[in-house]
Amino acid sequence: MNIILVAAEEVSTDRVVLTDRRAEHIVKVLRSNQGDTVRVGVINERRGTGTILSLTDRPSCRVELAVDLTEEAAPRPPVDLLLALPRPIMLKRIFSQAAALGFGSITLINANRVEKSFWEASLLNEASYRGHLLHGLEQAVDTRLPEVRCFSRFKPFVEDVLPGIMREYSHCLMAHPAGGRTLKEVLTGNPGRVLLAVGPEGGWVEYEVGRFLEQGFSAFTLGERILKVDTAVISLHGRVSALLE
Amino acid sequence: MNIILVAAEEVSTDRVVLTDRRAEHIVKVLRSNQGDTVRVGVINERRGTGTILSLTDRPSCRVELAVDLTEEAAPRPPVDLLLALPRPIMLKRIFSQAAALGFGSITLINANRVEKSFWEASLLNEASYRGHLLHGLEQAVDTRLPEVRCFSRFKPFVEDVLPGIMREYSHCLMAHPAGGRTLKEVLTGNPGRVLLAVGPEGGWVEYEVGRFLEQGFSAFTLGERILKVDTAVISLHGRVSALLE
Repeated sequence: MNIILVAAEEVSTDRVVLTDRRAEHIVKVLRSNQGDTVRVGVINERRGTGTILSLTDRPSCRVELAVDLTEEAAPRPPVDLLLALPRPIMLKRIFSQAAALGFGSITLINANRVEKSFWEASLLNEASYRGHLLHGLEQAVDTRLPEVRCFSRFKPFVEDVLPGIMREYSHCLMAHPAGGRTLKEVLTGNPGRVLLAVGPEGGWVEYEVGRFLEQGFSAFTLGERILKVDTAVISLHGRVSALLE
Repeated sequence: MNIILVAAEEVSTDRVVLTDRRAEHIVKVLRSNQGDTVRVGVINERRGTGTILSLTDRPSCRVELAVDLTEEAAPRPPVDLLLALPRPIMLKRIFSQAAALGFGSITLINANRVEKSFWEASLLNEASYRGHLLHGLEQAVDTRLPEVRCFSRFKPFVEDVLPGIMREYSHCLMAHPAGGRTLKEVLTGNPGRVLLAVGPEGGWVEYEVGRFLEQGFSAFTLGERILKVDTAVISLHGRVSALLE
């Protein structure tokens, strides 16, 4: 936890009282004392410092902070993720790693090789995934939660929703072995926002690739190595980021 | 397991008999039948196919293959990793992910913020880490094991070993917040092999950064986000790969 994140409604005239794992982190991991400062941010808002007014570990951890939020939130990351819904255990890791790396949004969609049961995962409820996103932000010292959207039917998503979404991006890219071109060859010009589509374990089927290309996606190849989806998401984020810099 | 990897000494006039988890994978996951072919590679050597001559699941899984190794091993990946020894649970993940992504070698070194106890991890024995590397290669359909080396003292490594190692590389790079320059700005010219140094949880201390720069490393910044070491290794590999393409 490299920053203590609080919700806007927890702050009352610059005071915050923590009694959960954040208090425990300050007391037991940071071993802070009264008068010390810790890094604090308001979710989706500004960052700054919190000065410890009081703290105790009995009967349970409780910390009172005076917060001073002098820094703007980091700008919205320029890359968004369009991801075929992975199995819950992998999605959990991806939520946290994607928030740490910085994606503006995560759109989860269906695909032929997505198992139907994945759509019943409790992890798809905001109350459930929010914790994993926050975990990533706490690691990365960021306050901005990626937006999460789910579309459980492929065809209506691609035909009715995707065209509207695509207008926000200068480049809509998909990693696909048949791409032929490298990322450098497709991420040309003066890129604005980038939408990055990542397929399911086993890849997109030809029909799906066809629909994406038809809508204006560019395919690029990563070479012949087959990566797990969570590794691929991080690696692709790195590749796109290096070229956007 | 996207390729069945066998050691050279397991192959006898193009025949291999499998009785361990590889046999189990063919019988229970792939559900192959006699006459089917599977992707096979010899560790550090050629790849090709294996035709199933016989298979049984009783009393335990046993598969006999006739192998036909028509493809060269993939070329040695152009990026090598110099990594401050992470905690064992993280190192385990890194071994497997680094092998999947493709690093030519992984050199583990000491640093001020490396806990001494990490050097006692059984994972540092080849018999122990080899399985994790193979796991990554099986995922990525590669046969080439990254070389692993360990240096448990920082100063002798940097002074006596590193200068010799560095001669193999066109670029020796370290991700460090103080870098100022972006990766694109330091990975210039016509890169050959790249050595990428990744620090411990909490980062290199100033003394260590100084020694690397003195030896000729270039520092570059990833921005202000703090990543976990395993996420950083994957992301950095992606960044360097995108620029090398």
